[in-house]
Amino acid sequence: MRNTACLLVSCPDRKGLVAAIADFLYGHNANILHADQHQDKVFGLFLMRVEWGLDGFELDLDKFDEAFAPIAEQFKMTWRLAMSSVKPRLAIFVSKFDHCLADLLYRHHAGELFCDIPLIVSNHPDNLWLAEAYKIPFIRIAVTKDNKAEVERQQLVLLEEHKIDFIVLARYMQVLSPEFIHRWESRVINIHHSFLPAFHGAKPYQRAFERGVKLIGATSHYVTEALDDGPIIEQDVIRISHRDDQESLIRKGADLEKVVLSRAVKWHIDNRILVYGNKTVVFD
Amino acid sequence: MRNTACLLVSCPDRKGLVAAIADFLYGHNANILHADQHQDKVFGLFLMRVEWGLDGFELDLDKFDEAFAPIAEQFKMTWRLAMSSVKPRLAIFVSKFDHCLADLLYRHHAGELFCDIPLIVSNHPDNLWLAEAYKIPFIRIAVTKDNKAEVERQQLVLLEEHKIDFIVLARYMQVLSPEFIHRWESRVINIHHSFLPAFHGAKPYQRAFERGVKLIGATSHYVTEALDDGPIIEQDVIRISHRDDQESLIRKGADLEKVVLSRAVKWHIDNRILVYGNKTVVFD
Amino acid sequence: MRNTACLLVSCPDRKGLVAAIADFLYGHNANILHADQHQDKVFGLFLMRVEWGLDGFELDLDKFDEAFAPIAEQFKMTWRLAMSSVKPRLAIFVSKFDHCLADLLYRHHAGELFCDIPLIVSNHPDNLWLAEAYKIPFIRIAVTKDNKAEVERQQLVLLEEHKIDFIVLARYMQVLSPEFIHRWESRVINIHHSFLPAFHGAKPYQRAFERGVKLIGATSHYVTEALDDGPIIEQDVIRISHRDDQESLIRKGADLEKVVLSRAVKWHIDNRILVYGNKTVVFD
Amino acid sequence: MRNTACLLVSCPDRKGLVAAIADFLYGHNANILHADQHQDKVFGLFLMRVEWGLDGFELDLDKFDEAFAPIAEQFKMTWRLAMSSVKPRLAIFVSKFDHCLADLLYRHHAGELFCDIPLIVSNHPDNLWLAEAYKIPFIRIAVTKDNKAEVERQQLVLLEEHKIDFIVLARYMQVLSPEFIHRWESRVINIHHSFLPAFHGAKPYQRAFERGVKLIGATSHYVTEALDDGPIIEQDVIRISHRDDQESLIRKGADLEKVVLSRAVKWHIDNRILVYGNKTVVFD
Repeated sequence: MRNTACLLVSCPDRKGLVAAIADFLYGHNANILHADQHQDKVFGLFLMRVEWGLDGFELDLDKFDEAFAPIAEQFKMTWRLAMSSVKPRLAIFVSKFDHCLADLLYRHHAGELFCDIPLIVSNHPDNLWLAEAYKIPFIRIAVTKDNKAEVERQQLVLLEEHKIDFIVLARYMQVLSPEFIHRWESRVINIHHSFLPAFHGAKPYQRAFERGVKLIGATSHYVTEALDDGPIIEQDVIRISHRDDQESLIRKGADLEKVVLSRAVKWHIDNRILVYGNKTVVFD
Repeated sequence: MRNTACLLVSCPDRKGLVAAIADFLYGHNANILHADQHQDKVFGLFLMRVEWGLDGFELDLDKFDEAFAPIAEQFKMTWRLAMSSVKPRLAIFVSKFDHCLADLLYRHHAGELFCDIPLIVSNHPDNLWLAEAYKIPFIRIAVTKDNKAEVERQQLVLLEEHKIDFIVLARYMQVLSPEFIHRWESRVINIHHSFLPAFHGAKPYQRAFERGVKLIGATSHYVTEALDDGPIIEQDVIRISHRDDQESLIRKGADLEKVVLSRAVKWHIDNRILVYGNKTVVFD
Repeated sequence: MRNTACLLVSCPDRKGLVAAIADFLYGHNANILHADQHQDKVFGLFLMRVEWGLDGFELDLDKFDEAFAPIAEQFKMTWRLAMSSVKPRLAIFVSKFDHCLADLLYRHHAGELFCDIPLIVSNHPDNLWLAEAYKIPFIRIAVTKDNKAEVERQQLVLLEEHKIDFIVLARYMQVLSPEFIHRWESRVINIHHSFLPAFHGAKPYQRAFERGVKLIGATSHYVTEALDDGPIIEQDVIRISHRDDQESLIRKGADLEKVVLSRAVKWHIDNRILVYGNKTVVFD
Repeated sequence: MRNTACLLVSCPDRKGLVAAIADFLYGHNANILHADQHQDKVFGLFLMRVEWGLDGFELDLDKFDEAFAPIAEQFKMTWRLAMSSVKPRLAIFVSKFDHCLADLLYRHHAGELFCDIPLIVSNHPDNLWLAEAYKIPFIRIAVTKDNKAEVERQQLVLLEEHKIDFIVLARYMQVLSPEFIHRWESRVINIHHSFLPAFHGAKPYQRAFERGVKLIGATSHYVTEALDDGPIIEQDVIRISHRDDQESLIRKGADLEKVVLSRAVKWHIDNRILVYGNKTVVFD
């Protein structure tokens, strides 16, 4: 396991930023393992991710905030500190489709997703067996037309009880309320089964079939109040042909969805994503 | 050079079609080199492409029509016969961008596109040098707000004079009139610089940049009266990242556009595309 | 479920083959759903796959052999008949790595692999839990230096008892004897963790790392007595960079291996592969 | 045009490197536009590329060497300074195949390759017309069994006269002598028409065809005395099938070769490649 810390910064672009951060870290004897930065000229923004080893680092992380505050103020930084040894806590929301859930659980088991998964929430009982195989608690809360608000209330309580850090909608077929989304801003990752913005909304595979496209896609994004319009984290496509009917589009798409979602989840866990405007930077 | 003939058929699906066609060909001593078929269940259509060697074929191709008519009538076929030894005649329409033109001319020179190119038409003089390097006639007809109809009239005369079989819009920045398109239905190939139907219409790279997508695409399609909505022949995408500004999107996109367009042109020349509804079958 | 039959043929190439087969099938009222053929000029071979619906087919499949024999003899065909409604029976051999096993079991559960899996054989107990989750019998037979022949004898008995049709080596780390391989010729599919013939043999990821390649690959192939040299069914690659250490190569490679293996298994089940010489044709 | 400078550094890995370099640059009022680094744990090496804007940079670049020397010495750096406004001078060596040459010349014309090309050297006259179309001097020196040493002597004189910085072998079918290669170490880029190390040596497409691989590749690398074994810069592959004969492999391969070579040339020009051991780092 890596014993590192990672600092994510965004602020108005100006000279001296890299030197100020590098000096601060080196002044506390950090060994910088990786640093990456980006300037967005349209927004006039500087975005940076820097990771360093904690062996020999001479600043107590409890006091990082206080020590870093003068630099952060000087450059008007929005910043966040993350430690690679602290596992974030993930809740997976799922309905009946199991391909994304099975993929996430396998990758978690294989050590690829460095997080805890204390909770799977579903509006159906179908995927209980998968949760059991991987020994993850599975809570079913049936959703009807009439109990949506009540269900969300229960979900919010569960999220708090389990100290959840972020949510993955692994083909969860219920729309979350604006209040829920607002509360969990930039912490809910969804997978949409099209190459957004093409086939925005419902039934993308059917519409792809009807339009006669030669590739189908999938898009993982942070959920915002504007449906299917949040900051895109990752996209990919797969080739199809006239031989593919709607059923095979769904099957090929499922393979793509799980891969695109897993990448987004991994990058989120690895603190490689910075959201700004309605976009993301994914640091290498 | 291959000395083959190729039959393209579409008709209502029913039993005995493959046998009827294979029997007809074998009855005239054809050596079938390649046969591919497709059933579209939604449309209830049978689509087939069969290619055979002409060495030893005992039916004079001038009499093919007459000899095949009874079968065609029996099965209500729409059909077309093409000979691989006959080069179709291509006119390229182009404006200032040269990447697609340069790619088509190089591939033609390299023997990859088995066609004649007796004519390049442009509304700008910029690409004359390229036409000269590859020894292709280049005719410039300047387009203004006021002379569009007149220009199309001249173009139609040129197309007739040069016995043109099909047109490629290699980033030609003028919209053709419905009359023109109707006259050249399924014989005008365009390249659109997005993964349609995403970013339909103008400035797709700018909109892709603003939306923060992670892949950009290109689409080649037959031109219909509905802008950017004709039958799709080929699509492909390329990965981009936050590091790409609009300029680099345009550069990466250009690389993609030329590849996607060249594939469509090659398939058209090789008689591998069947259009039905608003879709295409591209036979392997 | 499709109720179809599929005929796979290879024979010396000559005229009239397609017509003879199409006539035979149509003569028994077959509705040909898909037909694909290939001529290998180097070997002078004709290879064909034809699939037809059994609804209304007027020849009893028990009598197919007898009815088809005259044509088969006339053209010196090697041929095989398969029914899409008959599930082949698969035995998976696995050691400690679980990524290929987990992927195969999930795809089988999801209905993508139309086969029965009555048997998982392993030389280690590690993957028992996965077999249990998917309710597949798991038999562990420990292998030592001294008991290899005895283990193979037990395995052969198991394969016979369970009426196994084909075997998948899902990262099974034991070399099978020539006798075993000979007995199961063209019925054992292996996954090799490199783009063969590069990094033939042991430790391909380490060697890929040392050589500084920019892509790593995986290869699924039928097992022959010549190690890593059997007919290739499928290959694919994934991009890596200087940032990838050996550990991340192994992780990225695992993702690739399972995909490449699953495709090969699916194509084998769907009767789409014809082996000839040391090559395969995979029909579309 | 960007008015930037770029520093490439490799040295033994230790703490304080990033801070030392960032401080040095900021001390002279540099605006760091891009910084990327890599630690190779096996070699114990630190490798870095940092690029900054020269507007407002307060150190005369003529004095950079002197000013940076103390830091370079302290950390035992191997380093190189490059200015984005200085075009490197490229000589292209080519034989009869024209696909790589045509692609390089088009990209140079399109402004994608920021270099001067004062010289094309060929052992055949075939590509003179291409050189003329793009107005690049073309010098033919015929090579026979007997005059190889003399030809190389002439080539070395030409390279010196034209102040050439690096050479691209765009399918140049002559083997360069060890002396020549030694003199131009890490400055000669070759394209090999296989996915190295598969099909090392001659006739890779024929061997790929015989082996029945499902993908073919291309590899660009710096030339070393060990044939086809120099540091790999870039690789890519393309899917093939049983339908591809050797001729179509060559055609598909040509498309791949030119893309893989052009990427390597662009990265070399952009000072993004660091060679160490027998490997490369290509900075993003």
